[in-house]
Amino acid sequence: MTLTPDRLATMANAIRALSMDAVQAANSGHPGMPMGMADVATVLFAKFLKYDPAAPKWADRDRFVLSAGHGSMLIYSLLHLTGYESPTMDDIRNFRQLGSVCAGHPENFLIPGVECTGGPLGQGLAMAVGMAMAERQLNATFGGDLVDHNTWVIAGDGCLMEGINHEAIGLAGTLKLGKLKVLWDDNKITIDGDTSLSTSEDIPARYRASGWDVFDCDGHDFADIERTLAAAAASDKPTLVACRTVIGKGAPNKQGGHDVHGAPLGAAEIEAAREYLGWTSAPFEVPAEIMADWRSLGAAGAKTRAEWEARLAAAPDAAEFNRRMAGELPEVEPIRKALAEWVEGDATVATRKASENWLNVLAPAIPEMIGGSADLTGSNNTKAKCQAPFTAEDYSGRYVYYGIREFGMAAAMNGMALHGGVIPYGGTFLIFSDYCRNAIRMSALQETRAIYVLTHDSIGLGEDGPTHQPVEHVMSMRLIPNLNVFRPADVIETAECWNLALEAAGTPSVLALTRQNLPQLRKSGDMLSARGAYVLRHAEADRKVILIATGSEVELACKVRDTLEGQGIGADVVSMPCMELYEAQDEAYKHEILPHDPSILRVSIEAGTTMGWERYTAASRNGGLNIGLDRFGASAPAKDLFARFGFTAESIVPKILDKLSA
Amino acid sequence: MTLTPDRLATMANAIRALSMDAVQAANSGHPGMPMGMADVATVLFAKFLKYDPAAPKWADRDRFVLSAGHGSMLIYSLLHLTGYESPTMDDIRNFRQLGSVCAGHPENFLIPGVECTGGPLGQGLAMAVGMAMAERQLNATFGGDLVDHNTWVIAGDGCLMEGINHEAIGLAGTLKLGKLKVLWDDNKITIDGDTSLSTSEDIPARYRASGWDVFDCDGHDFADIERTLAAAAASDKPTLVACRTVIGKGAPNKQGGHDVHGAPLGAAEIEAAREYLGWTSAPFEVPAEIMADWRSLGAAGAKTRAEWEARLAAAPDAAEFNRRMAGELPEVEPIRKALAEWVEGDATVATRKASENWLNVLAPAIPEMIGGSADLTGSNNTKAKCQAPFTAEDYSGRYVYYGIREFGMAAAMNGMALHGGVIPYGGTFLIFSDYCRNAIRMSALQETRAIYVLTHDSIGLGEDGPTHQPVEHVMSMRLIPNLNVFRPADVIETAECWNLALEAAGTPSVLALTRQNLPQLRKSGDMLSARGAYVLRHAEADRKVILIATGSEVELACKVRDTLEGQGIGADVVSMPCMELYEAQDEAYKHEILPHDPSILRVSIEAGTTMGWERYTAASRNGGLNIGLDRFGASAPAKDLFARFGFTAESIVPKILDKLSA
Repeated sequence: MTLTPDRLATMANAIRALSMDAVQAANSGHPGMPMGMADVATVLFAKFLKYDPAAPKWADRDRFVLSAGHGSMLIYSLLHLTGYESPTMDDIRNFRQLGSVCAGHPENFLIPGVECTGGPLGQGLAMAVGMAMAERQLNATFGGDLVDHNTWVIAGDGCLMEGINHEAIGLAGTLKLGKLKVLWDDNKITIDGDTSLSTSEDIPARYRASGWDVFDCDGHDFADIERTLAAAAASDKPTLVACRTVIGKGAPNKQGGHDVHGAPLGAAEIEAAREYLGWTSAPFEVPAEIMADWRSLGAAGAKTRAEWEARLAAAPDAAEFNRRMAGELPEVEPIRKALAEWVEGDATVATRKASENWLNVLAPAIPEMIGGSADLTGSNNTKAKCQAPFTAEDYSGRYVYYGIREFGMAAAMNGMALHGGVIPYGGTFLIFSDYCRNAIRMSALQETRAIYVLTHDSIGLGEDGPTHQPVEHVMSMRLIPNLNVFRPADVIETAECWNLALEAAGTPSVLALTRQNLPQLRKSGDMLSARGAYVLRHAEADRKVILIATGSEVELACKVRDTLEGQGIGADVVSMPCMELYEAQDEAYKHEILPHDPSILRVSIEAGTTMGWERYTAASRNGGLNIGLDRFGASAPAKDLFARFGFTAESIVPKILDKLSA
Repeated sequence: MTLTPDRLATMANAIRALSMDAVQAANSGHPGMPMGMADVATVLFAKFLKYDPAAPKWADRDRFVLSAGHGSMLIYSLLHLTGYESPTMDDIRNFRQLGSVCAGHPENFLIPGVECTGGPLGQGLAMAVGMAMAERQLNATFGGDLVDHNTWVIAGDGCLMEGINHEAIGLAGTLKLGKLKVLWDDNKITIDGDTSLSTSEDIPARYRASGWDVFDCDGHDFADIERTLAAAAASDKPTLVACRTVIGKGAPNKQGGHDVHGAPLGAAEIEAAREYLGWTSAPFEVPAEIMADWRSLGAAGAKTRAEWEARLAAAPDAAEFNRRMAGELPEVEPIRKALAEWVEGDATVATRKASENWLNVLAPAIPEMIGGSADLTGSNNTKAKCQAPFTAEDYSGRYVYYGIREFGMAAAMNGMALHGGVIPYGGTFLIFSDYCRNAIRMSALQETRAIYVLTHDSIGLGEDGPTHQPVEHVMSMRLIPNLNVFRPADVIETAECWNLALEAAGTPSVLALTRQNLPQLRKSGDMLSARGAYVLRHAEADRKVILIATGSEVELACKVRDTLEGQGIGADVVSMPCMELYEAQDEAYKHEILPHDPSILRVSIEAGTTMGWERYTAASRNGGLNIGLDRFGASAPAKDLFARFGFTAESIVPKILDKLSA
């Protein structure tokens, strides 16, 4: 099909009309970006993007990422016009209303054609890096007949100004991700005004400095756009295309100004725009011939997909490919067997080391696991023996040296998980979860199986001091919805928590692990961590106390219990490696572990903030007791810090006796 | 004094010896950086840095920032050798031990000569940008006789690879901060191995693309170092000096490798290093003639300082300068008066708008307030009418267009506050506190008066949807020690909370503000927010319920109360704008507000996570009740969302009645 610039222009105007009308109807939203990038997006979808609206989850489709997610009407328009089942015109009509899949920012969990959730600036592009990494890894594994697609991104000035952009493009440049193509909406406008108000950067020079190809085009000249995207597509480097555009193009009195960025145009300007564009249709109506042009584009992908389906059907490793893309774990009998053997053992190791040891069981059995660390491989213990580095020279590797790029790593992990076919995990110090916190949140929101290996999880890391000692981090991540925060107490719980993280296909996980050694506390039981909390030691004397602890403090709780029992005071020790899973249990189980008996004193012990623990302790005898750390740590050897801050049986037992006698 | 390269070399070896011996004694730490950068640092302190060890807080000293804070023995060595009172040799001997001021990473609150806390990579350099901004602002205000100093930074590869580096250098380049000089320890080593493992960036090209000057030198050739630092000092652009160094220089068998980065050299290698360096002194001993060279350097600054003191004494605005540098607020009587007038009023406004209105009272009265926003000026309402932009053309401005750089902004605010003489505040959406979370934590750890204006503080922002709707953020920031999190309920509390934030000289503050309008609830009372929580509405009927709410949900709590009272059920409404201040009250006041009476049902209402609220509710009748949002939000108009998620009196009252009758 040959689409002349005139026909492309009317097609692009359909995007403009839908965008301005939807924002107007919602009385909220961002018309500037969809109107400004309509021409570029039309050329991309007409001539370059590989997609089939009938199969939004086709494994070898090109990924299209709207990193400038506030311009959501652009992608809603494109998906509807090209013939995706969702969104419907009714959805678009209800843009930004309760129940519409056309949310303010595009949400991957609402519309299958939306590859990732956009909005938090910079992350879409950084997730696209992860998608392009997954593509190369699967290409190296399954070959170009099954996996050979581009990742296209539309990004705005905000995406490029955010710090994560530096991390993302540095990673992409080093890994020579030539199938990553970023179209930059170069409109020289930010919310506060002209970009010159806050930046003087030579963006192309910066991208070139990171090993990227850079092209530029007039974003409203169809021939120039096509020529430039062709050059970008042909490049073997990651590529930035600076698309010089006019924000809000088509709104004759407002285009080019920053007022058009994030507010409805208003009825008068919309009328003027209709005239300017020659668009005579009513709101939410697209003339039949324009719709036909769009739909014929959309239909064109079916042939390519059919050819691919045929190749897949003939491929000897089709079953394995399909398994990985479906996100189904392989047979894990060897893993179960290994865990049973571990339970018989008696290993005193740091949980970070236990994690490494378990990775050496998991990684050979689960080939889709792709590990990595933000330059702390030897500290996070994230590399399994069987994993070779993932590099520009060998994309079949399964271990990524992410560099000192926590946020870029986390976003890339999200992109990999969203791409599918791989299960990413990555490590840094727990404290530096702060650096990638919003990407962890985005894992949760997007329901990705990203696994964060966060070591050095308390003052137990010792000498590096308060900048490196998490205090509030474990609890603060428990506040994020749809995130499982695991803090295992020993080698056995570490292995169990890893298994639970891998099995949670729609929920990301954090594994908070110690630097310091811990004894093996569990010598029996099968996957007890799956209940979130369980009784590790039962009271022998008459039960007066329940000690609830996590991670390294479970050992301490056991010592406290032994002292109490020695004085005739019965005490359970409840190990609670995952609050979220405990909360998901039925009431009967929850009451079995923490009975509604106000005569029993409940005591929490965790080397972090106490706030939040009152959920489990405050309604118990004398208001319960929370042993924790509500201040910053200090620099000293771990044992000195635990003593200084009261994490010893000698310090805790008298507090319990006081409470019992109050 | 003429120091020949030979003498400089022995002086630098004193740094090496102290560093390797201290790390060895602690059996923990980072010898590689101090040994590698010893030569460069020696030249800096010998020939370029303006400082006087006798007056570490001298206002016009050069600021020296060790951004690569893990190399803390470098700064401890330099401070001790040049004659600062702290640290002593005993402190150094006790490096990384409990009670020593020589913590694992340098902490500004432990040693006066440490300008900022180092460790979290990238932030030192970004704080230095803020220091250089404060310097220019004060220079423009008070003139070059009083304020004219450089900010020197030593940064490592990690500082340059982190995303925040992009934000920091972009801001510095745009603002043309010519007095900022960054010495990059270009040793081509990261923890995981050679830098080539994870980066292929042309760093000088990137810095040039952001408007920086770039020089390079052999970091072990004293003449070359001096020549290059002189060129850097003379540049009128922000300047990067690539210092090509050998990590761990002086350890003959380990230098140049990544094992020397973060572990003791070991006794054998230390012996070999002593021989290699010709260093015959015992650990923690410095030969007298070398110490004399260092001390004479340190003493040289006294003359410059005396000249400056004389200029200050003669300056007409000396008192004002001293007031600002001391961090003392000016006379605030006009502010008190304005607040009293506001209490008489009846303003229905969003708290973000109330904040803007109050800024128009504060900013004219407190000239050291420097505002800004990360490209959301019109949304955060952070600009006071009296504030002109702070730009490269006019440094006297008091409003910073930070660009889309949340992390860079927050770190710059810390740098400004640490520099002194200014009180920084800055805005973004509350959700994007995630992007700068560790800098907020660093505000708290460093005890800086940084004020974060975080608007759009709940699902009340409406249509932008879950990526923009904070759920866990208010509570998660309450977990950070030494941070006051304010969530005011109306125009009066907003003004009060602003005042409290300004008065807290050693504690940063977050102001969580609404997008949506709220009625004025308070018509009386003076600075009630200072108690953290207070009874806004007293029960009329027999008190059965205490409703505790914050921010926009206080209005809702009042409606719930009215409904309950209408049914003869007495209910207090406690407004709790700041949990931290409430916790700081004496027990008598706390019991007055929340009496120990289990027959009263306590109900928390906050449009965010419920976890944490059990502290105040769980021990009350029938386990208390927590009204909140423990899931992600959605895209829709605010009123639809509040209804959908149960934030209406119609939804809450039946739950209370259920609890009362249980």
